[in-house]
Amino acid sequence: GFARVDTHRVLRTGDPEVVYAAGKTSEQVVAIVKQLRSAHATHPILVTRASDECRAAVRTACPDEPLVEDAVGRCVALGPLPRGTRGRIAVVCAGTSDLPVAAEATFTARVFGATVEQVTDVGVAGIHRILAARPALDRADCVVVVAGMDGALPGVVAGLTGVPIVAVPTSVGYGAAFGGLAPLLTMLNACAPGVAVVNIDNGFGAGVYSARVARRA
Amino acid sequence: GFARVDTHRVLRTGDPEVVYAAGKTSEQVVAIVKQLRSAHATHPILVTRASDECRAAVRTACPDEPLVEDAVGRCVALGPLPRGTRGRIAVVCAGTSDLPVAAEATFTARVFGATVEQVTDVGVAGIHRILAARPALDRADCVVVVAGMDGALPGVVAGLTGVPIVAVPTSVGYGAAFGGLAPLLTMLNACAPGVAVVNIDNGFGAGVYSARVARRA
Amino acid sequence: GFARVDTHRVLRTGDPEVVYAAGKTSEQVVAIVKQLRSAHATHPILVTRASDECRAAVRTACPDEPLVEDAVGRCVALGPLPRGTRGRIAVVCAGTSDLPVAAEATFTARVFGATVEQVTDVGVAGIHRILAARPALDRADCVVVVAGMDGALPGVVAGLTGVPIVAVPTSVGYGAAFGGLAPLLTMLNACAPGVAVVNIDNGFGAGVYSARVARRA
Amino acid sequence: GFARVDTHRVLRTGDPEVVYAAGKTSEQVVAIVKQLRSAHATHPILVTRASDECRAAVRTACPDEPLVEDAVGRCVALGPLPRGTRGRIAVVCAGTSDLPVAAEATFTARVFGATVEQVTDVGVAGIHRILAARPALDRADCVVVVAGMDGALPGVVAGLTGVPIVAVPTSVGYGAAFGGLAPLLTMLNACAPGVAVVNIDNGFGAGVYSARVARRA
Amino acid sequence: GFARVDTHRVLRTGDPEVVYAAGKTSEQVVAIVKQLRSAHATHPILVTRASDECRAAVRTACPDEPLVEDAVGRCVALGPLPRGTRGRIAVVCAGTSDLPVAAEATFTARVFGATVEQVTDVGVAGIHRILAARPALDRADCVVVVAGMDGALPGVVAGLTGVPIVAVPTSVGYGAAFGGLAPLLTMLNACAPGVAVVNIDNGFGAGVYSARVARRA
Amino acid sequence: GFARVDTHRVLRTGDPEVVYAAGKTSEQVVAIVKQLRSAHATHPILVTRASDECRAAVRTACPDEPLVEDAVGRCVALGPLPRGTRGRIAVVCAGTSDLPVAAEATFTARVFGATVEQVTDVGVAGIHRILAARPALDRADCVVVVAGMDGALPGVVAGLTGVPIVAVPTSVGYGAAFGGLAPLLTMLNACAPGVAVVNIDNGFGAGVYSARVARRA
Amino acid sequence: GFARVDTHRVLRTGDPEVVYAAGKTSEQVVAIVKQLRSAHATHPILVTRASDECRAAVRTACPDEPLVEDAVGRCVALGPLPRGTRGRIAVVCAGTSDLPVAAEATFTARVFGATVEQVTDVGVAGIHRILAARPALDRADCVVVVAGMDGALPGVVAGLTGVPIVAVPTSVGYGAAFGGLAPLLTMLNACAPGVAVVNIDNGFGAGVYSARVARRA
Amino acid sequence: GFARVDTHRVLRTGDPEVVYAAGKTSEQVVAIVKQLRSAHATHPILVTRASDECRAAVRTACPDEPLVEDAVGRCVALGPLPRGTRGRIAVVCAGTSDLPVAAEATFTARVFGATVEQVTDVGVAGIHRILAARPALDRADCVVVVAGMDGALPGVVAGLTGVPIVAVPTSVGYGAAFGGLAPLLTMLNACAPGVAVVNIDNGFGAGVYSARVARRA
Ligand SMILES: Nc1ncnc2c1ncn2[C@@H]1O[C@H](COP(=O)(O)O)[C@@H](O)[C@H]1O
Ligand SMILES: Nc1ncnc2c1ncn2[C@@H]1O[C@H](COP(=O)(O)O)[C@@H](O)[C@H]1O
Ligand SMILES: Nc1ncnc2c1ncn2[C@@H]1O[C@H](COP(=O)(O)O)[C@@H](O)[C@H]1O
Ligand SMILES: Nc1ncnc2c1ncn2[C@@H]1O[C@H](COP(=O)(O)O)[C@@H](O)[C@H]1O
Ligand SMILES: [Mg+2]
Ligand SMILES: [Mg+2]
Ligand SMILES: [Mg+2]
Ligand SMILES: [Mg+2]
Ligand SMILES: [Mg+2]
Ligand SMILES: [Mg+2]
Ligand SMILES: [Mg+2]
Ligand SMILES: [Mg+2]
Repeated sequence: GFARVDTHRVLRTGDPEVVYAAGKTSEQVVAIVKQLRSAHATHPILVTRASDECRAAVRTACPDEPLVEDAVGRCVALGPLPRGTRGRIAVVCAGTSDLPVAAEATFTARVFGATVEQVTDVGVAGIHRILAARPALDRADCVVVVAGMDGALPGVVAGLTGVPIVAVPTSVGYGAAFGGLAPLLTMLNACAPGVAVVNIDNGFGAGVYSARVARRA
Repeated sequence: GFARVDTHRVLRTGDPEVVYAAGKTSEQVVAIVKQLRSAHATHPILVTRASDECRAAVRTACPDEPLVEDAVGRCVALGPLPRGTRGRIAVVCAGTSDLPVAAEATFTARVFGATVEQVTDVGVAGIHRILAARPALDRADCVVVVAGMDGALPGVVAGLTGVPIVAVPTSVGYGAAFGGLAPLLTMLNACAPGVAVVNIDNGFGAGVYSARVARRA
Repeated sequence: GFARVDTHRVLRTGDPEVVYAAGKTSEQVVAIVKQLRSAHATHPILVTRASDECRAAVRTACPDEPLVEDAVGRCVALGPLPRGTRGRIAVVCAGTSDLPVAAEATFTARVFGATVEQVTDVGVAGIHRILAARPALDRADCVVVVAGMDGALPGVVAGLTGVPIVAVPTSVGYGAAFGGLAPLLTMLNACAPGVAVVNIDNGFGAGVYSARVARRA
Repeated sequence: GFARVDTHRVLRTGDPEVVYAAGKTSEQVVAIVKQLRSAHATHPILVTRASDECRAAVRTACPDEPLVEDAVGRCVALGPLPRGTRGRIAVVCAGTSDLPVAAEATFTARVFGATVEQVTDVGVAGIHRILAARPALDRADCVVVVAGMDGALPGVVAGLTGVPIVAVPTSVGYGAAFGGLAPLLTMLNACAPGVAVVNIDNGFGAGVYSARVARRA
Repeated sequence: GFARVDTHRVLRTGDPEVVYAAGKTSEQVVAIVKQLRSAHATHPILVTRASDECRAAVRTACPDEPLVEDAVGRCVALGPLPRGTRGRIAVVCAGTSDLPVAAEATFTARVFGATVEQVTDVGVAGIHRILAARPALDRADCVVVVAGMDGALPGVVAGLTGVPIVAVPTSVGYGAAFGGLAPLLTMLNACAPGVAVVNIDNGFGAGVYSARVARRA
Repeated sequence: GFARVDTHRVLRTGDPEVVYAAGKTSEQVVAIVKQLRSAHATHPILVTRASDECRAAVRTACPDEPLVEDAVGRCVALGPLPRGTRGRIAVVCAGTSDLPVAAEATFTARVFGATVEQVTDVGVAGIHRILAARPALDRADCVVVVAGMDGALPGVVAGLTGVPIVAVPTSVGYGAAFGGLAPLLTMLNACAPGVAVVNIDNGFGAGVYSARVARRA
Repeated sequence: GFARVDTHRVLRTGDPEVVYAAGKTSEQVVAIVKQLRSAHATHPILVTRASDECRAAVRTACPDEPLVEDAVGRCVALGPLPRGTRGRIAVVCAGTSDLPVAAEATFTARVFGATVEQVTDVGVAGIHRILAARPALDRADCVVVVAGMDGALPGVVAGLTGVPIVAVPTSVGYGAAFGGLAPLLTMLNACAPGVAVVNIDNGFGAGVYSARVARRA
Repeated sequence: GFARVDTHRVLRTGDPEVVYAAGKTSEQVVAIVKQLRSAHATHPILVTRASDECRAAVRTACPDEPLVEDAVGRCVALGPLPRGTRGRIAVVCAGTSDLPVAAEATFTARVFGATVEQVTDVGVAGIHRILAARPALDRADCVVVVAGMDGALPGVVAGLTGVPIVAVPTSVGYGAAFGGLAPLLTMLNACAPGVAVVNIDNGFGAGVYSARVARRA
């Protein structure tokens, strides 16, 4: 085998097993998925950063598995998916270009067992939009906020709620956005406390994190 | 008044009011503290980044208030401090030089209502130390991990537990540590999910964040 | 003379002559001020980044001149100060630590002939504060917005008004604020158009710029 | 709908509605344009960063609308375009490679209601060229200066005029130009006051900003 | 000839001659290989960063030479390969995406005369994996550790063994990994001594270095 | 106790216990030294980055211990120092300003059991100097090369010898040396293989590393 | 015309007119070349960064002009080329991958009237090579040194000669070479005086500069 | 001796011996100066970055030597100073704060045998000033241009003359000047050819370089 598939991590953390498909061929992804399926029959498998072609290959290779998929978030999950859910998350997103990252977070959090409500296109350039979304913030046990360019949205949300916020900078933008560096720094320097930050474009990480916070509620 | 003291934030977020003493004179700090005390009698006040002299001034100015203080973390809190607590936090710290930041996190989390257990000097250079601390990790609702230099500890902790981790890079180190940039990047790139990051040396932010996560548990 | 004092710039741009006192001795500043006073009797002189000691030296050296001074903004102006004013500016500032830069902008704009209204402590961590300040924004011909740390305020203001905004990042903050780099990048990437940016801590530049915009109104 | 189209921004700022076509399919752009057209019949729509193919799709989809277009600036506008204009802008550009950004600024400013005069190829390597262009600078209410590589032109122009200058760094150059970082820093450090800066390659932002300044004149 | 092929370096250092094929055509590589073969018949030639096509060209051009090749590490070596070996190296690798760099290190070290044992997929996210690999570490005279993303593995290994460690950061990762900058900084700041670092993705350099250390043992 | 003194590391790595005195008071250093001395009587203690005052305090506190000290390298060692040595190291240094770092490396390597020969002031600006030092290079099992500013010396040395080189960039220099970043990058990009790099100014790390390499010889 | 072709620069500086072909179509280049040819019949035209296709287009469009061309340096020159030459230049290059930049410098310097001697593949990894090239250095009035990766060669050359050196960093390398940043910093920090630096990959600039120095000799 | 004083460099390059006093005690500087004086009686010694106290110590220690000194440039030279001079240099400086660096360049060039004409306070904010200085540019064999903040002056000068220009960025400025990084990048990207750059604040390097260019004329 080309990879030391870590079949113990599930037991250690209580979470599903995950395959990061970027830089892997569809054949490699399918092989890993099958190995994981046979190793522990009672857990779901999540594949992220999976191209259309890769997701199709997984679908074809596992025709009898329960399977859910998200084209915008480029994710697929299969196996015994979580039924009842634990905790509620709001995934908030500044602009429409941030949707793929938000969708990755949403999909991941659901596969990790959370109920997710998505709120899109509420960037700070029109502040009334996020103010209108306060009920969704108030309902949540954890809020994921996705934003590129100036990355100002998480700091504003943190002033509106006492719920823990997971901020995800995206590489959306140009020039002095420097591939996501600008929103990353903005979020790390948010004036209101209650914001913690994951890597640029890391919707997956935000999904896992928020699910872990929410499930304790 | 030289500052628009925000007496509504408490109501909005359910948290105490906070004064950031860095760059303020002791006189300014005392004046703000008094204004806040009279504005809402039922909440505590937390002062962070307070020098010995500043903490003494607060002590002298409010002789009749309940008051707690931490010299290592350079914090003082006064007013009606939280009695019963909600949720349990572990504050884990890589080296002894990271102690001031860890102490700020611990003190803050306590003033925000959490029970805190501190685990110090368990850096990855002697991996048996963090392995030995697993019971404390398992007991916690949220884990704060403080590290400078290589900043590797949060990623290792994330592989040991499914509890959400708040990582705090510190400016401890020299040369290519670049004032905390190196551990900051390490933590953002942690291989295991479950890590979210706050600003360099931001023990306060980690304390607030972890208290908010823990109180939901 | 140790400096080629540019007595023609006034004629070229219509603005007062300015002395940047940082890195100059009080004696040097006084000498330049006197040279400028005698060279063109009909214009004011503005001295910026002037320490208490330097401003006192100017005061003592020119006892018979009309003179105004601002201790927070570390500025002094003397000579025939503008009487009637042209245009109205709002100087908006996120936190109390940003006040010195805001004061430099306010003082400069006044010496350049504008009416200035100052709005302080309206950072995005409490969004109701800037919403409450909309009348001042609506009255202005140009808005200067001063902010450190996450630098999010100018982008929010730009969503509230069609008035041109001059954004000033400050070096207030620590860690990943990197001496003002973080708010600088935030402001350059503001999602709403209508924001242009000057150098970190450059209250002087913002004051001149806004006065030039406002005087055309 | 895939986007929360902000039909209120027009009322808030008095400006047309804008679609940023980069990263959107032609179908998405056409759909948004149509939605905006039906939502408010009395305002123009501006589409920026629109490829040849995208602009053709807009043209085909809206055959009966008044429509203007600029191939160099990759923009198209349609709907009730501004007739009488308010204020005069000079768009000055250092080298021929900077023309696309300058054209975006020019087109945008016109759709926002300004009269624009363009002055091209007047970089500081031949200083007589910008000196010869002074009449155009003197005529303007606001000057946009576009430059890549060393980005020195705005600072020189600021020494020649008291008119507010909007500086636009471009990604033109190689090596230590670092994708526009070099001219960006140059412009932020311009020795003469009167320069404010927008994001790298942000001709759109400069067009909006200068139109807002000029319309007050 | 287009290159001053350095036929003396072998004598100077005792090592084989090396061709870096990146940015060279297959024809150029073959020509250099032949020149080197005829210049010193008693030494091997190593070609690194050789595409499939390039390696095929070398194979075809030198049909009668002893030849070994590695597709993952993109290397080929030919001529009198080392028979008996001197010293033992462990090449340890954090994730499967780091394999190409690890394979380059392994192949190079073997051509430079070392015995190499490879240990893959033992990243710190599952710390039990590297703990299980301690026998291989204990057997080695030098350990090469290859890791991208957070680059934490070499520091952990350095706490487990007194053997000198050559750390190789890789460009594996995204966002704030900044093309390998993040793991590079982590490794330079490793808390345990005993770690020295080579360039990002420089498996070749690590192979040479470790072989030189091991051969002295 | 304020520190989890790691009394097992010695057993793990075979090396002395080390105290990093920077940022610690003399009292703290003395306390740690005493704790370590009593915990394992058979090993030496090394204190690095120790000011004159700190070294005097150690001297006074342990009057009966064998003790060696180096004022230039700011180190002190006490306890059962190594007698017979294992392996030979050359510590080569580019300029006289690099001497403190070179001295730290030399002192550390000796306490870790190596014989050290120091070669100073042989920077590449006078290439005959390093050529003249070749005998010392040839005698060594490992070469430490210390250089600031352009950091070119390790790459030149690597072309002269097949012995493994540990390169130490220093913060010596100004302007575009950026606190040691320039020589760090130079060393990571050395054209000749055989160079591995430690942190800026990390003479201690280079001493440990080279001693570990040399002792295997 | 789409460009303000600067027909006066020749008179100002005494140098040929230059067209930078990168980012221009072959048609645009041919049109500019023809305009320049007709504007001043007595000077040569130099086209740099010209693809094979572009150079062919120039050749075809100007069949009757004297024309010289260099495929490696991607340059073409036409018109009355300089006959007698003024001054002698050595163009020295570290590795074969640096040849395109060196060739651009050589070609440019010749069109600007210098005699050029090229010395290739003399990087510091084999220091005997540059020592052997000293006669060429001694003959020159100015030395151009081209190097990527560690960029160490100019500093070594500066220790061997009192002739002014123009250093050209190249983008050759990978990882921590950061597109030429590493050799750029090395050259700016060269320990020996006598080195001045031009932009990364700027063979053209080095050619002009050295020709100007040499022609005064 | 603590330094390998390089008594052969003079013979190699034909230049005086230089002592860089920064980071050295006055005693060390005096000792090196004496050693150099006795080693070669026929050459001058230049000491740069020498504090008032250090220059006084040199003066006292060598009472019988011919000695010249510059307080602004913090330099002192002694021994057989050059009498007749070779070549003419213009040292041009943008602002009065750049004077120390300009003075270091001027002093150095004179000790290296050139005639120097200094032109100060001619920054691009008042472009008529540098235009008025053209006669001095035309007279020179080499022009040194010193500027901080935006660093635009060398590029403008390069458009006015065909004389080789040595550009010196200074650390004058604040905020986004980043300690001289901004003018450094500007100068490397100067649009007109004919500019080569030395390290930030490196007046010494510019003095040596320009003297070497001028002496060939
Ligand atoms: N989108 C993602 N971004 C970052 N890390 C991921 C992502 N998806 C999966 N991972 C991590 O990658 C690991 C699997 O990597 P691999 O073994 O290379 O497939 C998982 O355990 C996750 O921790
Ligand atoms: N606070 C400031 N920040 C930036 N530039 C300033 C400031 N104050 C004055 N200046 C500029 O500095 C010039 C005067 O510099 P100086 O001749 O050194 O006194 C003025 O013409 C202004 O353009
Ligand atoms: N993968 C690699 N990474 C870095 N340097 C290499 C690599 N492979 C070979 N080299 C170096 O490149 C030199 C040959 O370069 P060249 O003459 O351009 O083929 C060898 O002597 C090695 O030092
Ligand atoms: N290879 C090159 N690198 C940098 N600048 C160049 C190069 N070739 C030409 N130039 C400059 O570009 C100018 C012509 O630019 P353009 O008008 O766009 O063709 C010339 O005057 C040169 O100063
Ligand atoms: Mg939107
Ligand atoms: Mg410890
Ligand atoms: Mg406040
Ligand atoms: Mg041009
Ligand atoms: Mg794995
Ligand atoms: Mg020396
Ligand atoms: Mg070669
Ligand atoms: Mg001046």
